[in-house]
Amino acid sequence: MNTAILLYDGFTALDAIGPYEVLSRLPGARATFVAAEAGPVRTDNRMLSVSAECSLDELPAPEIVLVPGGPGEVAARAGGPALDWLRSAHETSTWTTSVCTGSLILAAAGLLDGKIATAAGVSAGIDMALALAARIAGDDVAQAIQLGIEYDPQPPFDAGSPQKAPQEIVAMLRANSRFVVGEEALAGGS
Amino acid sequence: MNTAILLYDGFTALDAIGPYEVLSRLPGARATFVAAEAGPVRTDNRMLSVSAECSLDELPAPEIVLVPGGPGEVAARAGGPALDWLRSAHETSTWTTSVCTGSLILAAAGLLDGKIATAAGVSAGIDMALALAARIAGDDVAQAIQLGIEYDPQPPFDAGSPQKAPQEIVAMLRANSRFVVGEEALAGGS
Repeated sequence: MNTAILLYDGFTALDAIGPYEVLSRLPGARATFVAAEAGPVRTDNRMLSVSAECSLDELPAPEIVLVPGGPGEVAARAGGPALDWLRSAHETSTWTTSVCTGSLILAAAGLLDGKIATAAGVSAGIDMALALAARIAGDDVAQAIQLGIEYDPQPPFDAGSPQKAPQEIVAMLRANSRFVVGEEALAGGS
Repeated sequence: MNTAILLYDGFTALDAIGPYEVLSRLPGARATFVAAEAGPVRTDNRMLSVSAECSLDELPAPEIVLVPGGPGEVAARAGGPALDWLRSAHETSTWTTSVCTGSLILAAAGLLDGKIATAAGVSAGIDMALALAARIAGDDVAQAIQLGIEYDPQPPFDAGSPQKAPQEIVAMLRANSRFVVGEEALAGGS
């Protein structure tokens, strides 16, 4: 099961790395980071570069496509080779998936129907990938992967969604874009 | 608050990227990936490279040190510049932290006492980083970061620790090293 993870300038790292950590552990699986050009790609905060192992042309038919979100999605969905590649790859993919605002890129490519899995923001990509792993390889394998990455979340606060966070925290997030990653975090609370 | 995230050949990506995604969002914060030499560093499964922005020499005194785990820890703790750098950085750091088997590297550097925070495997680094963010910047900021990355975990299974996973899954993991990331996943169940 070959997963292609689309990178673009300004993506959010955890959107991509969470699902990679799950899907790369499927039996016989390979995860490949792809971008318009091979080489380092900068994340949203410019503090990190992740390497695209190959260009889009070099990986035309992955079985799973994963599109992370991040502020760079605005430019990514304005047009260009990534949208063309998504349309083409979606024709033969088993699953076409997104995390956070990556769904807007899928929408821009006209793909939001059929064999699509979209996840909420950032860390939710791990949950989505585990559910996908179960669909692909069975519950036992998915549980083994979950145990392997010790995904036993015990966050010190229960503030991960606008419905659960104290309303002053939601207001703080609205006022300070530094904390904002995905639009969904705000849209959910409005 | 400047966080240095130590990379070495064979680290586990999510160990590093989870805390990065939290700690880089602290007000005024900067996260820097460092390694013996600047440039791309391969993860445990060889499918991903993350760029070290600078060499250890270039970042001698970070306020937070974070050491990810991964199979490469065996070589990393055998000796070399990373251990020397850790000992030196620990003298002036506010926090010296690890995820998963990164704790074994801290131990090899002789640092497992004082201002140390260690986390269990892989995804637990997110929880540790949020707790650290709260200690550094207060509960409100930590909650805002949690909301910003929409860390509202809803794993499809409850199999993230050997105590919770079905025992046949624990046995499967013991038998198939492909799924094993950190030794802790197994040690906890024995």
